[in-house]
Amino acid sequence: MLDPKRIAINQATTRAQWDFRESVEGYARHGVRGIGVWRDAIERCGMADAKRLLADNGMTVTGLNRAGPVVGLDEGARRAALDDARRAIDQAAELSAACLPVLPGSLRSKSKDMNAVRIQYREALAELLSPARKAGITLALEPLHPMLAADRSCMNTMADANDLCDALGQGIGIIVDVYHVWWDSRLEAEIRRAGKDRLVGFHVSDWLVPTRDLVFDRGMMGDGIIDLRRIRRWADGAGYEGPVEVEIYSNLDWWTKNPHSVVEVCLERCRSVV
Amino acid sequence: MLDPKRIAINQATTRAQWDFRESVEGYARHGVRGIGVWRDAIERCGMADAKRLLADNGMTVTGLNRAGPVVGLDEGARRAALDDARRAIDQAAELSAACLPVLPGSLRSKSKDMNAVRIQYREALAELLSPARKAGITLALEPLHPMLAADRSCMNTMADANDLCDALGQGIGIIVDVYHVWWDSRLEAEIRRAGKDRLVGFHVSDWLVPTRDLVFDRGMMGDGIIDLRRIRRWADGAGYEGPVEVEIYSNLDWWTKNPHSVVEVCLERCRSVV
Repeated sequence: MLDPKRIAINQATTRAQWDFRESVEGYARHGVRGIGVWRDAIERCGMADAKRLLADNGMTVTGLNRAGPVVGLDEGARRAALDDARRAIDQAAELSAACLPVLPGSLRSKSKDMNAVRIQYREALAELLSPARKAGITLALEPLHPMLAADRSCMNTMADANDLCDALGQGIGIIVDVYHVWWDSRLEAEIRRAGKDRLVGFHVSDWLVPTRDLVFDRGMMGDGIIDLRRIRRWADGAGYEGPVEVEIYSNLDWWTKNPHSVVEVCLERCRSVV
Repeated sequence: MLDPKRIAINQATTRAQWDFRESVEGYARHGVRGIGVWRDAIERCGMADAKRLLADNGMTVTGLNRAGPVVGLDEGARRAALDDARRAIDQAAELSAACLPVLPGSLRSKSKDMNAVRIQYREALAELLSPARKAGITLALEPLHPMLAADRSCMNTMADANDLCDALGQGIGIIVDVYHVWWDSRLEAEIRRAGKDRLVGFHVSDWLVPTRDLVFDRGMMGDGIIDLRRIRRWADGAGYEGPVEVEIYSNLDWWTKNPHSVVEVCLERCRSVV
């Protein structure tokens, strides 16, 4: 069974109901001690107040969402995106976040060249690595589902993420979000390839049949078809000991419910099926 | 530019407007000489009439859709599915179809074990290979997009299809449907790996941003973000000389339009962007 101390919740899971303060206090009331936070929420709250709130509730930050998108941009926008990513590195350091996901983005304007945007992503990561290492912040690669390849992420498999890690060296890790990678026949092998050193996050939700929306129809663990426990054991078997973070985008269902009930169900399902 | 003689249209592209006879005659009127046909349409028309209609219009059959699903079934249903697939082999031979796609299917009932259904698919193909070889029909593997992995196909990449071909030997080929595989960073390498001997079909449509439905929102070539010409050249570069088949599922758009206009746009776009 999953050690309950490892359970974390991403703020997105209750973002329709709770602001930052309510999320931190709400999760804490149910015994959760890890939270994935979002920059806009931190900025609305104010960094000093956010840090105090986290400390007062014994809450650690699993990741700060996020830097990027950084590809498919003209030169001015690309520079601005990299400057913004450097600010995100500083914010992540202030919050002692375990990692900073860097969303690639994908095709923009008229280009259809996926290879070009993939090269841009690698170059942007290379540029961000130096300030990230200096700040002690691990940049996190999170492969997103191929159905998001056109507009949100040009990195769509664990193999692509591992290849990038090979190319870029120390200071980069990988978040396994089961929703995005569960379908991949190479998943077990690529989780093993990532290993203890690279695995910096493990996100859970579930794939619903049918899925009604490409972004906002994720299911509660156990309500869909992902073999969550099997995949979690692959990660643990590869040496991963970090948080198991619930991240559910669900504007048709969970975002309409009482957030305390949502957290209770999250915890129950983490115990029973993850 | 694409040789216009290679252009074919899958009947699904006008399935809301035209029955089998209307499709054959309609495509032929616009100079198209290849059609991807569906078994239910052939059966409604009657095999003898269907063959006459095809011959009278100088139309060849690129593929007969389809055998399967064959996985995730209990033993009785599995036997019935394999028997049905053998009938499909005979029908494909009667129609001189260039290939017979075998849809795997995926998870059913309570199982979440993707590896198990993938093994079932390989076993089903192995069982069908002997009658297919006898009938001179190539079984076609068509990787479907990972967003369809839960319920429609447990085979989701060109790499998986190539691995199956490696395991099963002669008599099996691969259909590259750009809609399903365009996002894959390994696409070019896996098309090359498939090569002339394995490539038995090349289907085109386009990926729309946003995509509003996981199955029925494919775009007309040129209306989306797929670099169609680049991918078609990869296939041609690997030695593929067969049909380029338009297959558009679009209940919100193209299925609501005058089918003659749809065919005209298909042909124009094949010339201008494929």
